[in-house]
Amino acid sequence: MTAIHGADSGKTRYYLDELQVGQRFTTGTHALDAGQIKAFAAAFDPQPFHLDEAAAKDTLFGDLAASGWHTAAISMRLMVDSGPPFVGGIIGGGGEIVWPKPTRAGDVLRVEIEVLAITPSKSRPDRGMVTVRNDTRNQNGDILQTFTAKLVVPKRPAAG
Amino acid sequence: MTAIHGADSGKTRYYLDELQVGQRFTTGTHALDAGQIKAFAAAFDPQPFHLDEAAAKDTLFGDLAASGWHTAAISMRLMVDSGPPFVGGIIGGGGEIVWPKPTRAGDVLRVEIEVLAITPSKSRPDRGMVTVRNDTRNQNGDILQTFTAKLVVPKRPAAG
Repeated sequence: MTAIHGADSGKTRYYLDELQVGQRFTTGTHALDAGQIKAFAAAFDPQPFHLDEAAAKDTLFGDLAASGWHTAAISMRLMVDSGPPFVGGIIGGGGEIVWPKPTRAGDVLRVEIEVLAITPSKSRPDRGMVTVRNDTRNQNGDILQTFTAKLVVPKRPAAG
Repeated sequence: MTAIHGADSGKTRYYLDELQVGQRFTTGTHALDAGQIKAFAAAFDPQPFHLDEAAAKDTLFGDLAASGWHTAAISMRLMVDSGPPFVGGIIGGGGEIVWPKPTRAGDVLRVEIEVLAITPSKSRPDRGMVTVRNDTRNQNGDILQTFTAKLVVPKRPAAG
């Protein structure tokens, strides 16, 4: 597998042509604490189980839990900082997201990425769709989120 | 359709039993500006097209665009503040998310919710799953995000 250097950075970046089904990537990690969970929740998901340990006790979560959107946002940050370096960035049209377990204070998150499918565009010869499964795991290997995403990745420009 | 008042607030809240397929809700609105877009991106999705108008020009977005996760987070906030008042809160196990159009500075967002399916749990008689389609629209009616979510909603406790 070959890879090129993008014009805008020294980072090795991949065109659609250089990806293959089954290819895997792993990001760096992010350590989550209660302060981060409460700050995100206060801004975007102010429900008791995301804001306060005591209030969470009597809920389905049983203890403070991060908003699923916080897990998603941290996962995106990990993807951007240390995930697969696609030419053009990580641009998603959507996908299927599931949160099988709550994300807790003290969790150290990482994202494991696998390329599931590569589909060159019929209407746009300069790009294609890459389907990737992104598993967000904690330090125990528990899967906290799976986002199966469809990403837009450019094709390598024809030589000449 | 009946509804009850939750013990924890004066707000009318719905048990699973009081929901019906086809039922609709609409949230209040949130006005988005470039500062919010850039602040969210700096924290969670620091790619050029989410951070800087000039840098966005040469990308697939053509101008500053909000991170999809920012649209999702704002939509969640609107749901919590003024969406369907389910007993126990808005607790999702996941769903399918799509972003058909970029969210832009100046957009005023609202979420339109429709109940698609109601499925009492076979294993847990105290709850059920509600499938809802949440369309996040801007002031022109454009759909910026559709999140088809599976939510957990408690059943009304048996009398006695």
